[in-house]
Amino acid sequence: MRWARFDNNGTALYGVVEGDTIIPVRGSPLATWERTGTRHKLAEVKLLVPLEPLTFYACGMNYPEHVREVAVKLGQEPNLPKQPDIGYRANNALIAHNEAIVIPKDATDKVQYEGELVAVIGRKCKHLTRDDALTAVLGYTIGNDVSERTWQRGDRTLWRAKNTDTFKPMGPWIETDVDLESLVTKVRVNGKQMIEFHTNHMIFGVVDFLVAMTKYLTLFPGDMVWMGTEGATADMKHGDFCEVEISSIGTLRNPVVREA
Amino acid sequence: MRWARFDNNGTALYGVVEGDTIIPVRGSPLATWERTGTRHKLAEVKLLVPLEPLTFYACGMNYPEHVREVAVKLGQEPNLPKQPDIGYRANNALIAHNEAIVIPKDATDKVQYEGELVAVIGRKCKHLTRDDALTAVLGYTIGNDVSERTWQRGDRTLWRAKNTDTFKPMGPWIETDVDLESLVTKVRVNGKQMIEFHTNHMIFGVVDFLVAMTKYLTLFPGDMVWMGTEGATADMKHGDFCEVEISSIGTLRNPVVREA
Repeated sequence: MRWARFDNNGTALYGVVEGDTIIPVRGSPLATWERTGTRHKLAEVKLLVPLEPLTFYACGMNYPEHVREVAVKLGQEPNLPKQPDIGYRANNALIAHNEAIVIPKDATDKVQYEGELVAVIGRKCKHLTRDDALTAVLGYTIGNDVSERTWQRGDRTLWRAKNTDTFKPMGPWIETDVDLESLVTKVRVNGKQMIEFHTNHMIFGVVDFLVAMTKYLTLFPGDMVWMGTEGATADMKHGDFCEVEISSIGTLRNPVVREA
Repeated sequence: MRWARFDNNGTALYGVVEGDTIIPVRGSPLATWERTGTRHKLAEVKLLVPLEPLTFYACGMNYPEHVREVAVKLGQEPNLPKQPDIGYRANNALIAHNEAIVIPKDATDKVQYEGELVAVIGRKCKHLTRDDALTAVLGYTIGNDVSERTWQRGDRTLWRAKNTDTFKPMGPWIETDVDLESLVTKVRVNGKQMIEFHTNHMIFGVVDFLVAMTKYLTLFPGDMVWMGTEGATADMKHGDFCEVEISSIGTLRNPVVREA
């Protein structure tokens, strides 16, 4: 089942995506809901970010080749993380499918994509076990963890490198029926494939993170966990468009513009 | 004016604090509101966290003696930050005035207080200037940035060191009439004063942070910025109670228990 959220004359409505149509619901996928009797063409509605995270969690270094690539660029030895230490991002940066990534005037040219799987938490939970951890996940969507590499290296925190307004495209919808092990992530810029990787070949998987996090943290419906990216990334410039596709979920597409 | 939020038979209501009473309002301090005709004794209501942050920002190293103390403990040279790089905390960790800080079973004894001023954002804003930055602030409350120092040093991020459930006491209320330059922060454990400092003698003040942040980030009503702490901190143990007082705002008091 696919959950999207769309603009209905200025009001955000949840809807169930079926083929090329969307059926608005009363309620929310995080609580109770029922289908309305209407149906829109998907191409004719403006999709919103499928859900605003309550807390916006993000794994950093979570794929082996990405850790190695980052180390090479910094001239350091690769240092694979030994435990799943979660990080944070911020809602101000979220944009929906088709909305523009805006590079600030004073950013360098090192503004890069990172295609990521996003786990959406569906219920309040603490002390999850390896057996029940995935039952806390409502479904999965796609994120692009856009990053300004100069700021990422020079600042004390990731605030503007990762959370500048528009640097967190997410969508197009939440897919609830997902076989994690079969997923493949592809990133394209202007239609050219930049990377392809097995989405689930993470250093620490969704279960690892949820079990570790909920030893100390209560998770709530609407919390989200971005799972990190693999491999090298490349610069995006004004006029580009970037697509992150994850098989059986969908494709998140965003144009890139530089602030005038 | 003092804004508190309290439990009214399972519903959270905002109220205006006057002396030892609280007057419930319809609406919210972030939007429109009007006083109701009722009034409760403050001692007879259960105060809640005065507002759940939309995004929970926190300054790290923001007072000179604190930066020096941390460096000494790590055996490093103190390195004063050169620009206001903001960080993040998470709502799962918030507790209200009088609620218990719970030290997890497997935490070390190095669980320490950090008394902090908290700026509460009252309106949507970007590109604030030094002249108008403070007009974006609804008011100020008090935070205790409880930290497990062993995790803080050993983990790749601050996730459990700073965001374990109950590690972020905040309250008791939001004071809208504050002269920043006159504020004094005092921290007491079991009634004994541990530190006293001029609240506004930060490396980067509220104006510095809001101007820097809003160059790249949109702030929204309900966002909060914890402003950091000064000096050395000390361990808290089962049975202690910790108080953070900021003059003209109030006193945030929380007992400490260790998980059995």
